[in-house]
Amino acid sequence: MAHTYSIGVDIGGTNTDIGLVREDGTIVARRNIPTNKYFDIEVYLKDIVDLVKEMMKENELEAIDGIGICAPNGNTYNCTFSGATNLNFKGDFNVQEIVSKYMDVRVVVSNDANAAAFGEMVYGGGGMKHLIMFTLGTGVGTGIIVDGKLLLGATGGAGELGHAIVIPGGRQCGCGLKGCLETYTSATGIRRTALEMLENNPSYDGVLSKIPAEELTSKAVGDAANAGDPLALQIFEETGKILGLAMANACSFSSPEAVFLMGGPVKAGDVLLNPVRKSFAENLLFVYKGSVDVRVSELPDNNVAILGAAAMIKSL
Amino acid sequence: MAHTYSIGVDIGGTNTDIGLVREDGTIVARRNIPTNKYFDIEVYLKDIVDLVKEMMKENELEAIDGIGICAPNGNTYNCTFSGATNLNFKGDFNVQEIVSKYMDVRVVVSNDANAAAFGEMVYGGGGMKHLIMFTLGTGVGTGIIVDGKLLLGATGGAGELGHAIVIPGGRQCGCGLKGCLETYTSATGIRRTALEMLENNPSYDGVLSKIPAEELTSKAVGDAANAGDPLALQIFEETGKILGLAMANACSFSSPEAVFLMGGPVKAGDVLLNPVRKSFAENLLFVYKGSVDVRVSELPDNNVAILGAAAMIKSL
Repeated sequence: MAHTYSIGVDIGGTNTDIGLVREDGTIVARRNIPTNKYFDIEVYLKDIVDLVKEMMKENELEAIDGIGICAPNGNTYNCTFSGATNLNFKGDFNVQEIVSKYMDVRVVVSNDANAAAFGEMVYGGGGMKHLIMFTLGTGVGTGIIVDGKLLLGATGGAGELGHAIVIPGGRQCGCGLKGCLETYTSATGIRRTALEMLENNPSYDGVLSKIPAEELTSKAVGDAANAGDPLALQIFEETGKILGLAMANACSFSSPEAVFLMGGPVKAGDVLLNPVRKSFAENLLFVYKGSVDVRVSELPDNNVAILGAAAMIKSL
Repeated sequence: MAHTYSIGVDIGGTNTDIGLVREDGTIVARRNIPTNKYFDIEVYLKDIVDLVKEMMKENELEAIDGIGICAPNGNTYNCTFSGATNLNFKGDFNVQEIVSKYMDVRVVVSNDANAAAFGEMVYGGGGMKHLIMFTLGTGVGTGIIVDGKLLLGATGGAGELGHAIVIPGGRQCGCGLKGCLETYTSATGIRRTALEMLENNPSYDGVLSKIPAEELTSKAVGDAANAGDPLALQIFEETGKILGLAMANACSFSSPEAVFLMGGPVKAGDVLLNPVRKSFAENLLFVYKGSVDVRVSELPDNNVAILGAAAMIKSL
């Protein structure tokens, strides 16, 4: 049987990665352009289409299934990422409409967490039709798959569990609310916990106390935890407690087969994951026991967004 | 055009209501049998089928679209309500299989909150494809509609937001967890808040202090609040704060067009609904502002379950 292919585009503030993806998840070709050098969305998308055509020619392809685009603020319904604060493209635009000027191809746009969730279903810890992906980064993103489809909701903006409130009246979040999940369990949230705990434990003189405050990252906490530092372990204990609870709450919503985790802090491994699993088990409603796993994403790190974006074309 | 009809069955611990429902939501005939007098599921379902046939004959109907059944512990995937603690029927059984012995008809089983959500979509505050229903009763049930379909999840048991944890480490819930929504915002939860507040306000000598503790219901709190009693108003203020937050959190999951409320406590009206709306607005993520309403169910009280159950046949 002949292979089928689609394009996955990962739009970041600095770089745009473009991959030609075979239906088995192999990235057979890729290109890269500097997002922040573009100010005109039409020029930007035309350059992407030119690279797509180039890769198709190179691989002797006459057709692809479509172009999946993963971008900050990406909205599937409007096929746009207008309004993304870290991109130069101003005003409203419809990506499908613009791309259609240069190529007759279907375009799907979504955000990072949705693409990661979809990519996980299609290319990662596969076979599931019900899953929730939590991506821990600067913030916490979530993508929710129900019956094999992305949960988009009335606005296209469903799946923002990073801003579900886990601690009423808790930490101030950049979104304006207080106590949002991401203020505790994003890389930034873990850093906040670390700073708080250092302040509350003046007698502690372990490795974290030697790191200048501005360099105290969740990565540093992870390294210290894996070296057995007690304060670092306690920071992850607190983080895991809140994240596990939020994951259990999410199960009461959609009863998934698995909750997946990905992102920088997850790389710390069991020092974070064990507290997460413990809290998840303690806070999961009994009716879901045994039906839902906690899993780490099986998508290759550098290719999550490309694979996720390409996957969306295959299945939306 | 000829009318179409389906049957809605509402199974309660004491009574079973059976309604013949026209596609416009009119209940054209109904019957009632005492659930708790039955111990054999086969006899029970045969009696229901006999009454269905009786109503069909009476209305000169040769066919119906199906029988929708709303029952405690109702699971759509397994077509069962086995395991419901307040029913006499023991062991596993499949309702479709049993009914098929007596009548060639499709059967759909679900629980109260799911049926209420579906009934709302089809016969109530209509036209929406994305909504969440919160039913406040002895507990808090939720039914979630996504893209016009019931969100059932991997197990069929999705939509248990009454057991999403809103106050970590909070009130002990009957489910074994702590801080579940229903421990604060069910009729029983409101009663708990009332008892707590009375204890914390020994100088209060208003109407609630004259009610014996065992008669202090959420209905009594509602009546007192509507008569201007300051403690009763404060109880609803607290209740509304937590319920509004939970409703806002739910929007971050599925981005619905509306969150509906129904059940005893909701009948108190604005004394409860105003604090709910205030808290909802304060805790809703900015991206959903303007896209989601707080609404009171428009289904007629006595017929929610019959209409909901009948609706499920129409659209599942």
